[in-house]
Parts: sequence; C-alpha cells; structure tokens
Amino acid sequence: MARMPTPIPTTFASSVASGHGLLLVRGRRSTRAARALSLGTPGGRSGTAIHSSRQPAAAELVEQSVNTIRFLAVDAVEKANSGHPGLPMGCAPLGHVLFDEFLRFNPRNPGWFDRDRFVLSAGHGCMLQYALLHLAGYPGVTMDDLKAFRQWGSRTPGHPENFETPGVEVTTGPLGQGFANAVGLALAEKHLAARFNKPDLCIVDHYTYVVLGDGCQMEGVVNEASSLAGHWGLGKLIAFYDDNHISIDGSTDIAFSENVLARYEALGWHTVWVKNGNSGYDDIRAAIKEAKEVKDKPSLIKVTTTIGYGSPNKASTHSVHGSALGPKEVEATRNNLLWLHEPFHVPDEVKRHWGHHIDEGASLEAEWNAKFSEYEKKYHQEAAELNSIISGELHAGWDKALPTYTPESPADATRNISQQCLNALAKVIPGFLGGSADLASSNMTLLKMFGDFQKDTPQERNIRFGVREHAMGAICNAIALHSPGLIPYCSTFFVFTDYMRAPIRLSALCGSGVIYVMTHDSIGLGEDGPTHQPVEQLFSLRAMPNILVLRPADGNETSAAYRTAVVNRQRPSILAFSRQKLPQLAGTSVEGVAKGGYIISDNSSGNKPDLILIGTGSELEIAAKAADDLRKEGKTVRVVSLVCWELFEEQSEEYKDSVLPSEVTSRISIEAGVTLGWEKYIGQKGKAIGIDRFGSSAPAGKIYKELGLTVEHIIATAKSI
Amino acid sequence: MARMPTPIPTTFASSVASGHGLLLVRGRRSTRAARALSLGTPGGRSGTAIHSSRQPAAAELVEQSVNTIRFLAVDAVEKANSGHPGLPMGCAPLGHVLFDEFLRFNPRNPGWFDRDRFVLSAGHGCMLQYALLHLAGYPGVTMDDLKAFRQWGSRTPGHPENFETPGVEVTTGPLGQGFANAVGLALAEKHLAARFNKPDLCIVDHYTYVVLGDGCQMEGVVNEASSLAGHWGLGKLIAFYDDNHISIDGSTDIAFSENVLARYEALGWHTVWVKNGNSGYDDIRAAIKEAKEVKDKPSLIKVTTTIGYGSPNKASTHSVHGSALGPKEVEATRNNLLWLHEPFHVPDEVKRHWGHHIDEGASLEAEWNAKFSEYEKKYHQEAAELNSIISGELHAGWDKALPTYTPESPADATRNISQQCLNALAKVIPGFLGGSADLASSNMTLLKMFGDFQKDTPQERNIRFGVREHAMGAICNAIALHSPGLIPYCSTFFVFTDYMRAPIRLSALCGSGVIYVMTHDSIGLGEDGPTHQPVEQLFSLRAMPNILVLRPADGNETSAAYRTAVVNRQRPSILAFSRQKLPQLAGTSVEGVAKGGYIISDNSSGNKPDLILIGTGSELEIAAKAADDLRKEGKTVRVVSLVCWELFEEQSEEYKDSVLPSEVTSRISIEAGVTLGWEKYIGQKGKAIGIDRFGSSAPAGKIYKELGLTVEHIIATAKSI
Repeated sequence: MARMPTPIPTTFASSVASGHGLLLVRGRRSTRAARALSLGTPGGRSGTAIHSSRQPAAAELVEQSVNTIRFLAVDAVEKANSGHPGLPMGCAPLGHVLFDEFLRFNPRNPGWFDRDRFVLSAGHGCMLQYALLHLAGYPGVTMDDLKAFRQWGSRTPGHPENFETPGVEVTTGPLGQGFANAVGLALAEKHLAARFNKPDLCIVDHYTYVVLGDGCQMEGVVNEASSLAGHWGLGKLIAFYDDNHISIDGSTDIAFSENVLARYEALGWHTVWVKNGNSGYDDIRAAIKEAKEVKDKPSLIKVTTTIGYGSPNKASTHSVHGSALGPKEVEATRNNLLWLHEPFHVPDEVKRHWGHHIDEGASLEAEWNAKFSEYEKKYHQEAAELNSIISGELHAGWDKALPTYTPESPADATRNISQQCLNALAKVIPGFLGGSADLASSNMTLLKMFGDFQKDTPQERNIRFGVREHAMGAICNAIALHSPGLIPYCSTFFVFTDYMRAPIRLSALCGSGVIYVMTHDSIGLGEDGPTHQPVEQLFSLRAMPNILVLRPADGNETSAAYRTAVVNRQRPSILAFSRQKLPQLAGTSVEGVAKGGYIISDNSSGNKPDLILIGTGSELEIAAKAADDLRKEGKTVRVVSLVCWELFEEQSEEYKDSVLPSEVTSRISIEAGVTLGWEKYIGQKGKAIGIDRFGSSAPAGKIYKELGLTVEHIIATAKSI
Repeated sequence: MARMPTPIPTTFASSVASGHGLLLVRGRRSTRAARALSLGTPGGRSGTAIHSSRQPAAAELVEQSVNTIRFLAVDAVEKANSGHPGLPMGCAPLGHVLFDEFLRFNPRNPGWFDRDRFVLSAGHGCMLQYALLHLAGYPGVTMDDLKAFRQWGSRTPGHPENFETPGVEVTTGPLGQGFANAVGLALAEKHLAARFNKPDLCIVDHYTYVVLGDGCQMEGVVNEASSLAGHWGLGKLIAFYDDNHISIDGSTDIAFSENVLARYEALGWHTVWVKNGNSGYDDIRAAIKEAKEVKDKPSLIKVTTTIGYGSPNKASTHSVHGSALGPKEVEATRNNLLWLHEPFHVPDEVKRHWGHHIDEGASLEAEWNAKFSEYEKKYHQEAAELNSIISGELHAGWDKALPTYTPESPADATRNISQQCLNALAKVIPGFLGGSADLASSNMTLLKMFGDFQKDTPQERNIRFGVREHAMGAICNAIALHSPGLIPYCSTFFVFTDYMRAPIRLSALCGSGVIYVMTHDSIGLGEDGPTHQPVEQLFSLRAMPNILVLRPADGNETSAAYRTAVVNRQRPSILAFSRQKLPQLAGTSVEGVAKGGYIISDNSSGNKPDLILIGTGSELEIAAKAADDLRKEGKTVRVVSLVCWELFEEQSEEYKDSVLPSEVTSRISIEAGVTLGWEKYIGQKGKAIGIDRFGSSAPAGKIYKELGLTVEHIIATAKSI
C-alpha cells in the first residue's frame, strides 16, 4: 500500500452540506491521532447494555470508515462498469452510524433470531449494504465478493437479494417493496413480543431500520404501508428517508413537491429532520436515539444528503445515480475526498475498528441464548411455540387438523371451506396469521378464536390490512422472512392480484412462502361484472416462475391445497376459491392434489378412454357431469383434475403419461378463464372451453350459460372431435 | 299512483346527521307548497352564466329529489337482489346538488366536448350515478335500464362502464382507479385549455368532479395521483371524499386512522370539510363554490355522510354496503323516510324539475358551438388541431412520418428507435403526449420539441409522472377517454407492468388506446438482475383480452408497432423494447407486423421447409443467425417473426397456415421469456427455447449464454428434432 489514508476534514464536509455539486477541499490533517484514538476504544464496549447505542468511534476514524464505504461502492461500480454509486456516497455517514453504533447483529450468524433488521428499500444503492456487511464481518461478503459485484454467480447482485447474500433480509430493488417489507418485519416483532415476552424475560426485542429514497416515497405502496404502520403504532420501526432531491429524471422538483414530513405526521408517525446528512454525525445519532425513545409511533427520519457526495462534477446530479463515475471522475473524487488509495482499499484501522462486531455479535447472541434457556425452563408452552416459530418445525401430524369431506357432505363454496381450513391450521401452527384487504367477510378469512392485530392488541392474529392489496403482499413477504415458522396468509378477490402482482412476484423470487387466499375466482362471482371477474389471472400467474397456483374443485381439494401451501415454505401458493357453492365430488383426493393433476373418474380400461375431459376448480363439476352424460351414451370418458399445473409438471414422465396418455388425443379442457396455454395439455387436436373475452355483469348462472361453460357445450364439443 | 309523495322534513334530516343508525321521524309537512315552488323555478335559469352555479330548487323539492335518488338505488338493488345501496343512500344529497346545480352537461349529447366530467371512483355505488343520469335525461339510462340493473345485456352493469352506459366517462370499481382517472381528465383539460384558449375565446373550460370513498383513500394509487394533482396544481379538479366511516370489514377505525385532510394539505391540495353531508345542502353548495374559486390547487371536499342513510336498522353499518336491504328493511326505510311509493317511483314534480337540464344542456352546447365557430374563423391552425383532438381524425399520411430502415442502417436498441418514432408522431399528431415514470432517459421517451407539462407550463407535452407507475396508467386511460384524438403514451421498465397491471387491464376493458412503451424487455438489461428482468410479463399480458402485445425486433418492426398502436384507438398496445443494440434485419416489414406474424426468410420451396424457427424481438436476430448456419449445412429453414400474437390470430386460417404450415412440425421458438404458451405455435413436436426461471445479475451477454439463448443452442435443438 503506497499511500497513507487521509481522512476528509470536517471543514470540507460542512462545505458541501448545502448540497452544491462543486466541491473544494479546504484542508487536511494527519490520521495518526485518529488511528491512535480508534485503537483505544473497541475494548471499552460490551454487549451488556444491548439496547443503548454504542460509543461512537473517534471523529477521524468515523470519517475514514465513511470514506471506505464510499470508495468500496465507487470502486465496485467502476469495476463492474454498472451500478449506482450515488446513494452509497451520500448515505455512507448514515450507514456507518447505524451499523457501527446502533444495529444489533451477529455477523457470524446472520439468522440470529433477535437481531435488528435492516432493509435497504432503495435497493439500487446495494453497494452501501454490501460494504457495511463486509466491514461488519459477515463471512458471506468477502472482498472477492465485492470485486465480483453484479457478475454471474456472485453473492453481490445488482440489487439486494436475500437468497444470494447472507445478511440481506429481504429482496429489494422494485421501489417501495423494501419499505413495506420493513413494516412487515416490525409487525412480526411487535406480534411476537406481545405474545411471548414476560415481565421478567424480554425475549423478543429488536428494531427494524429501513432506508428509502425519493423514488420509494413516490410509490403508492409506501403510502399504504406507512398508513398501516402509523395505525398499528409500530414504535420500533425507524425509517430513514434519504432526501437527496434527485431521481433518475433529474431534480425531484419536476414530479415531487409535496411536504413529506407533514404527510407522515398526518399518517401518525413521529418525524425528525437531519438537515445535514453529509457530515452531521451527531445529528444522525441524536435522531436515531430520539426515534428509539418514541415507543408508540413509527419514526421517519428525513436525512438530507448529497447524492454522489464527494464527486466534484457529478454530486447532486442524476448522472451519479445509476452509472459508474468513469475513471476521470473517480480520480477527481479521490483527490477531492483525499482518498489516495488503490481501489477497494480498507485501511487497517478501519478493519480493526469494525472487527469488534464479531465479538460483540457473538456475545449479544450468547446473552440472548442464556436468556432463552431460562425462558424455556420457566415457560414451557410458550417456549415450545416460539421454538416452532424460530425453527420452522411444525408439530407432527399438524395436517390431520385439516377437514375431510365425502361426496355426501353438503355442497359449499370453496371460500367457506377455505375458512374451515384456515381456522384448523391456526389451532395447530403457532406462527399462522394473516388477513384480508378489507374483504374478510367476503373472503372468509377471519380466525374465529383470535381477535384483531391492532396497536393495543398486537398479540392477536387477524390482520386488518384495509384496502391496500399491494402493501398487504409486501408485508406478508416480510412476515414470512422474519422467522421460518411464521406462515402468513393474505386475501382479496382473485382479480385484485393485479394490484399486488409486484409483491407476489417477489414472494416467488425471494422464496417467501406466503399463502394467497384469492376468492371470487371467476365469472362465478356474478353481478359485480367484468372489473371484478378474473379471466386471465390464472394463466398470468401460472406464467410466473417458482409459484404454485392451485384451483381446488371441492372440499378435499381445498384441504389438500392448504396442505401443499403450508409445506411449501420456499415458494408462494395462490389458492383460487369460488364464491359459489360447489358439490363434493367423487374421486377427488389429497394424494391427487399433491401430484397437481390426477384422474377423478374413468370408465375405460387399458388406459385408453375415448375422451379425456380436463377441468379445474368450479368447472371440474361440469366436466364430471358431462362425463356422466357421455358415458350413458356408451363413451369411455376420463375426467382429470388439473388443480395445480406446476406440481403436475414436477411429476415423472411416466406418471404424467398415465394421467394424460399421449395416444388419447381427444381431449377437452374446461376452465372459466382464457384458453391460452391449454394447448400444453389438450394438444393440437383438443379443444379448450374457456373465456377469451372479459366477463359481464349478470347473475353467475346466466353468465356461465351465455359464455358456454356448460355440460351441453362440452357434449357438443366432444361430438365434434 | 295511490300514495302521495312525502318529503323528508329537515328536522329529521338533522336528527341523523350525527351518524347514528337508529332513526326516528319527528314530523311531516305537505308537499304541495314545495311542488308549487319547484314549478315556478326552472324557467328562470338559462345557460348564459355557465360557470356560476344554478339556483337551487326549493328545499322540499330538493328533499324529494334526494329521496327519489335514494329509493331508485334501493329498489334497483332490491330487484336485482345484488348491489350496493349504502353509498347512494348516503351520497344522494351531494349527488343531487352537484348534478342539478353545478354540473355542466348536455344529456342528449353525452360526448359534448366541453362538458364537465364526473367520475364515481367508488364505483360500487353506481346506482347513484345511474339514478342521476336517468333524472338528468340521458336517453341511455331509461327506467327500464334501472329495472335491469346488473342483468345480462343491460346498460346498468354492477359497476360503471363507459363502454356500456352513455354518460359514464370511465370504467370504475377497482378502488382508486376512478380517482386517478379524474386526475387524468383534469390534466387533459388543463393541457388543452393552455394550448387552445385565447384571451378573447375560452374554448376549453370544464371541471372534473370525482367521488371517492374510504376504500379508494386507502389505495396507494390514490396517493400517487393526489401527489401529482397537487404538484401540477390541477385547480379544476374537485374531489368529494365520502367520509362515511364504514368499509366492508366494518368501521374504518380498524384499519384507517390517519388524518386525511392533513395528508391532502401536505400534498398541496385545498381542503374543505362538510360535516353534515346528510342534510347540509348549503354547506355542500358553499364547499363546491369555494373549491371552484381555488384555481391553483385541486380541492378535496370531505363530506361526512351516513352510509345507508334512512335505513332504521342498517344505516352506519357495513351490512348496508354491499347487499340488498331485504324486503322488511326496505319497508322500514320507506316508512322512516316517509317515502310511501311503489318501487322505482319518480314523483312528477321531480321529473319536471330535472327536465330543464335537457334544454339547458342543449343551449350550453349551442353556445359553445357558436363560440367554436368564431374560434375556427379567427384561429385556423389551432382550430384544425383542436378539431383533430375532438374528432380523433388524424391527418392523412400521418404514418409517413415514421422512420424506415434498411439492413444497412446501424444497429440500435429498439428503445432508441422508439424515441425516434415518438418524436416523429408528436410532430404530426396534435393530441400525442405522454411520459415516463421517472425513467425518461432510460426509456428514451422525451419529446425533444416540447418542454415539460408542469403547473405553470401545462401546454407542454412531456409528462413527468415520477415513480408512480400505477397512477401513470390510470391517468393515461383517462387522457385517452377525455377526447378521441388524445393519444397518450406512458413508459417504464417492462417488468414494472406488474405495478400497473390494474390500469392496463382497465385500458383493455374500457377500450382506452393507451400506448405502453415498455423498455428493458428481457434479461438483456443485464446487471440489474432478476428483480428488473421480465421473464413472465410477455405471457401474462398476452393472456389479457383486448390488448396488443408487440415485441419488435428492429427498426422497421418498431415503426410498424407504433403504426399499429396509433391505429388501434379502442385497445391498448404494449410495446416491448430492448435496452441492448439490435441489428436491422433483412426481411422485416411494416406489412408483416400488421399481420402479427410473417416470414422474414425462407430457403425452401413449396411451403415445406425442414424447420421453422419462430422468434420475437431481440431473439429474432438469433433465430436468423441460426437459420443462416443451418442453411449452410444444406437445411431448408424458415424464420418467422411472431411480433404480435393477437394480430396473427386475427388473420385468416389460410394466411396463418401459409406462415406456419401444419405439415411442418419441426418448429423451434426462441424468446427470452417463459415458454408456457408457445405450445400453441410449436405444437407437441416442437421445442421452445426460453427462460423458465428468474433471471440473474450479470452482463447481458453472459446471461444469454448461460441460459441458452444462443445460436448454438438453436442448432443443437434443431438437430435433436
């Protein structure tokens, strides 16, 4: 290392606090004193007072650390020639203070249950997070990882992904998602704390911190989630709004002139403004301390920063948002911030200083483990439940709680059967909780033995999301990721998956096993008309990777769908339920549903029926009736329930061919949705009966008839092929 | 008519203003005086002072009219045994005052250009709107229509649909959409007024009114659109927030405790609170007048009402929100409100009173027509442009402005070619305008000859939506529906169609020809990773009815895609563009794109190639290269561009078979997206090359290679079949 590290003097820092792009250096000082100071401090800290902030490092060491973070970001983006240097350069001071002085974590066990959660909702600035995780000693983020930023197979992808990088809690990047995730993490903490903490043993006790930018602030989902966080009084949620006044199209003045703090006050939040986020370290510290003290409201700390801080020609411009600075500007920035090092340099004293987090993290966790041992001794029952939530292990035989049906059981809407299943599961799964977007009485999602999760009753398990589908999905993603044994469900009309497609996609991508309870799943909802009648949603969700779409036909298939959804903790399940009554069919089974597609009836022998009718959900009944009629005419007909395409595709070729033998090309599918995609199973000689148009406002039976989803239509089609 | 109409006495009205459910009648008065009064007033009004409010009718006639509205809603819902009586019963006073005293419209020409626009964002309360349209004399809403509420083929569907009911401006029901539509309508007015009004001739001058409820308020899209409306200073937008404190799950207290008015003030709105929306007619009038006077800010009028007003046992409860009252409660309500009439009764004096809107509407339009004639004489150029916007007629030869390319033209990203097209179209189409959700410089959507549409420069055509995809889509829907010649485009990364799927669906349903400019259409965007890489979006949108999904491969296909999008005014177009450079291919053509799928090259004769390669967008180049290599080995290979499946499906069977002859079963598709759905064109013997997983963060070329979207993979696959 040829050159000595040189900290940025405070006079410089304050000179740019006003947000101007052109920066001049006004002085420099030796770092030796700073190093001496920093070396003297780490031993003085311990994990004993784990909820107060730690002693800050000496001012010059802080500056060194902050510049280390800035240049790790600059250098990684430069090496990749791709990425977003602006945010990390502006938010490095906040990042340093938060991670070094406040955040409670154990780098050697990123999954330690009672850690504070940190979410970078402005996920494009992920080099900030990677640099902090690296300095803090997370083994999953090595210097080699930083150097492989945005490369194939690296642990440092272009946006934070929990499934790639240990220490990253959730997957962010699509703006606003991370913020709503943070609300979900804070909800989970508040719920578990209320359920499990005892006067003598506080076993669930952590904060959730989130950084969001102007882009997140503009997204509707952030307002939805903020309104809920205020309503729920999530006092341990602390959001940092990186107010840098720049978004991709330039100054935020062109599209964003509202008073953000006043809006948050209206939403029931505590607010603080750190006017100098570039160098006002004490202000940042004071703001966090203040926010932690406010227990009954979430806090928004507006931190005014300079995007691309330190870049003489690009700071405070949108050109520093999402592109590498370029070699010349990197050089100019090094000179400007007096950071005359090779790329990816971490000064020894910075390394040493951050090193203390490894011991501290270990002792934080050890302390908690000791406390939990005591808890287990004193509170068997609660400890068993909490252990199930922490580990994700379910009680043996949990699925026996699910109801079963016979063909003699009364006809019922699958949404009603769904409610029986939800209530059965909530009794045997300690981490089962959820709710609806203001449709609980239509979706049939209330857990009857529990009250509402509310500000003053957070131990309860019915979550009232209001008409906020998008935030609901994102909150549930985070609940599932908070602890392996938390199993959230959420609910609205099936057509309104369109309002929450972004979080559903993230469930699938990030491996969050949310259960989506989607009722009113077709034109069968009737009079509300085409705005409320899904026709393309089944297929549009089947197109998504890593998701299960289940459309059960009756009671047993509904029970089985829930069983599948609970078992699949690494991918979400969409459960599509009917509004209308459906009979209990002969031949449906739990084992069949587990295979995605199976034969419910067949009067042929030798696996060669004249015709195969394939149905899903409410149309399986129509297929079964048509088969009965055709059999009376002497035909051999097989009826197949294709309740979950994804599971069926996972079966062996042999099994699939046993259900849909290739030699039987006379096939008819019937499903109250678009027919695109059915070619896969009916082949080029088959016919798909469905709805290749929008629905209509009328009584359900009338629409079924008018659109040809009838026994008669199947029979006529069968005769035509 | 056996019984006399009896108005509700004001003493009663005020007794329920406090919002209690149990109502007692305290007195009654004869209606004769009221009738006499009402008959004396209509002649006194004229259309001369068209912007001031009209004289209100006498108090008792107003009450009669309001109860007429209430009971038309109650009776229609009861007859259908389906619907939402609560909102119309609560908002009838507001509805009466607005339609009868303020709204400028011509019932005999619902499409009159300069009419005020009214949107019921809380669309479930549509019987309010149908009753008002009926009373106001819209021929499209007869008494028979009201009686056919929610029935097959009726003009009174379960939620307001502009394509079913003349007088309904937009399609609402999915909560929040209508509100954001109203912002779009007000934007259109402000833009056109700034462009076309002259000091001596104010030719564009109307208000936009919208009613939204608690449900809409919770939706994120409403906050997005409200933030924009405040930013743009849409002074002629007046929103009524029906504050009835009830949503489907019960009291709004369970999920919605924010301070709405304070939030709107933070968003830059003017706010007013009408505390007694049940009978405070003068307060409603004063609030509207006040709102109309505030020219530089949109206004939110919070109107506190009682849902289901008048129902003794159900008012102020969620049971009156979305179900028929039931015969007993209807009877009780009739007694309570002293409305002792047969169902669907409209008292003669109410009929007579509302009758004056027919003459007044005719004279409003006649007056405007006269003014416009003068305008046409004085301002030829502007009048020609405005006429094009009003009529939707484009200048002959407009499409000649679109650029053309040869195989020798330089390679370029289709997003760049898209920008050339946008700029070419904006020169020749007066109503062409649009923008991006804070990605203008990435989506390449800026119109270079225009500035930004902003509060003080509303004549400009670049709309800066900020990071608000959902509101962007809904606003564009309304711009398109405001006038046939307004052609809005909007833009974001293709993956973020997930954020705006609800308004895209409404574009398709309501026939709004929005042009969706969706760039970064595949893993070809590279390092931003799977959160930003669409893989399932093409299919999820192809599944939607009444929409065109076009994925052009090069310059000529891009030009042709725009031509298609402009021509299709009754359905939206999704244009998917590449981030990466693509060569200009031999064989692509405008005529081919118009057919959705076509042959770009073939070295066989007699329509029987050994192999057909089918590609779209950026993968068509790969298919063409693979074909070249295979031909060198002596194979006969056809390459088909399937740029738009929907258009291809609309072609004759003969044409389709000429492109994809059924006897050629060796087919390979290549598209950088999921393969589900390709069975339709490759058949059961074909192979689909695609991406049945999420993408990855890495340089684009690397991802293409790792995921097998390569010439080599095509060739290997070709050899395997």
